Amino acid sequence: MHILVTNDDGVTAPGLLALVQEMRKAGQVTVLAPDRNWSASGHVKTMDRPLRVKEVILADGTPALATDGAPSDSVALALLGVVKEKIDLVVSGINPNENIGHDVTYSGTVTAAMEAVIGCVPGIAVSLHSPEERRGPLDYSTAAEVARHVAEKVLAEGLPEGVLLNVNVPYLKMDELKGFMVTRQGLRVYRDALDARKDPRGKPYYWIGGEAPTGIEEEGTDYGALKAGYVSITPLQLDLTARDAMDGMRKWKW
Amino acid sequence: MHILVTNDDGVTAPGLLALVQEMRKAGQVTVLAPDRNWSASGHVKTMDRPLRVKEVILADGTPALATDGAPSDSVALALLGVVKEKIDLVVSGINPNENIGHDVTYSGTVTAAMEAVIGCVPGIAVSLHSPEERRGPLDYSTAAEVARHVAEKVLAEGLPEGVLLNVNVPYLKMDELKGFMVTRQGLRVYRDALDARKDPRGKPYYWIGGEAPTGIEEEGTDYGALKAGYVSITPLQLDLTARDAMDGMRKWKW
Repeated sequence: MHILVTNDDGVTAPGLLALVQEMRKAGQVTVLAPDRNWSASGHVKTMDRPLRVKEVILADGTPALATDGAPSDSVALALLGVVKEKIDLVVSGINPNENIGHDVTYSGTVTAAMEAVIGCVPGIAVSLHSPEERRGPLDYSTAAEVARHVAEKVLAEGLPEGVLLNVNVPYLKMDELKGFMVTRQGLRVYRDALDARKDPRGKPYYWIGGEAPTGIEEEGTDYGALKAGYVSITPLQLDLTARDAMDGMRKWKW
Repeated sequence: MHILVTNDDGVTAPGLLALVQEMRKAGQVTVLAPDRNWSASGHVKTMDRPLRVKEVILADGTPALATDGAPSDSVALALLGVVKEKIDLVVSGINPNENIGHDVTYSGTVTAAMEAVIGCVPGIAVSLHSPEERRGPLDYSTAAEVARHVAEKVLAEGLPEGVLLNVNVPYLKMDELKGFMVTRQGLRVYRDALDARKDPRGKPYYWIGGEAPTGIEEEGTDYGALKAGYVSITPLQLDLTARDAMDGMRKWKW
């Protein structure tokens, strides 16, 4: 099995290294990832400029490919032929923060897995629900092991056409996990606020600031599962039709 | 009624000007749009750099605001307070090409409307199904009139919570339109191909190239409606859960 590993934090991120080292136990691994951070960059197809791909070496000596494109570009480049061998699975991550609720359309981690599905290859996004306050480097070992477990399940069972998996892992030891839960996308609560400042020349500029987002801890959702100590596995699709709204709207006098 | 107009082609785009001129018939209009093209840029929240907002003048003398952020950033900035007056509706466009099927997660036009919904304001994305081969400037007059009509319906009827509208307009005169059709998201057929080239120094670079995408002309879908001469109105939601896949996946031996 040939697995493409990518991410949205850039090819030097510790979460990618942990994922690569673990996925190698499941098959042959090729890395093609962005050369910089693309967090919350969305689902990108770069068409107004050409993309570069360069050979780099990960911290453990693994050869890898880095591009100046987005996470979804990395996947497109690999599937369109920059990587010569057939790819059986795309795994994106490990993101150092959870991707739940409305995060999924912003998230470079998740949109890389969307791009895999558009390229007709199964895609898995893996994110870690790390503590808000932390000291020192994050421990990605549980999330990496979970990623491999999910990847092996996907390779064995197959995913329905057009479906990707959004996997979120609690910040626990492997034996502390309550289990795996198939969930629905929950509700994110963003707490963004405008942070207006003046530059040294007195001209205004704006940060999209505010506090870290929270979520609604509803049972059966991604966030609810995480908070209860479960790995959350949310199957996502690219059909966004709001079917429940259609009948009502047909009654409008168009 | 106070309407925010934005787009993904940049504040100088003819499609934005046509939309602004028409929306002024429905209410007070404020323009806050990107200062450059962000096509296929996805749903962005810029957090790693601050954003600038500058005052500009549209080609007809209308004062407007331009930012170095993405389309979705434009909406976030406006709703978070760069625009002081309460905003009742966000209309994004007019995109010179249709946004159908899988385009919706890539499209800056559509993701601007997504951001409106996240900010609890109704959002409408408007795109023109322009002919592949064309000479001279596009005629946005029908799409602009349709946009105003849809905006007035939305202001009168209200949209269900969490729903945005993806509106695609055939390239026809107003009296040639067959009518309005509430549709589901259809299937895009991408025909991307890698276009590998060498720079003047012999080093490789890659365009994501290939032919223009097509779509599957299925009845009841966005693309099917367009091809039959109808305005396509697709209600979209930000819950991407693939509900049909959940039961099957729960039977996997996790």
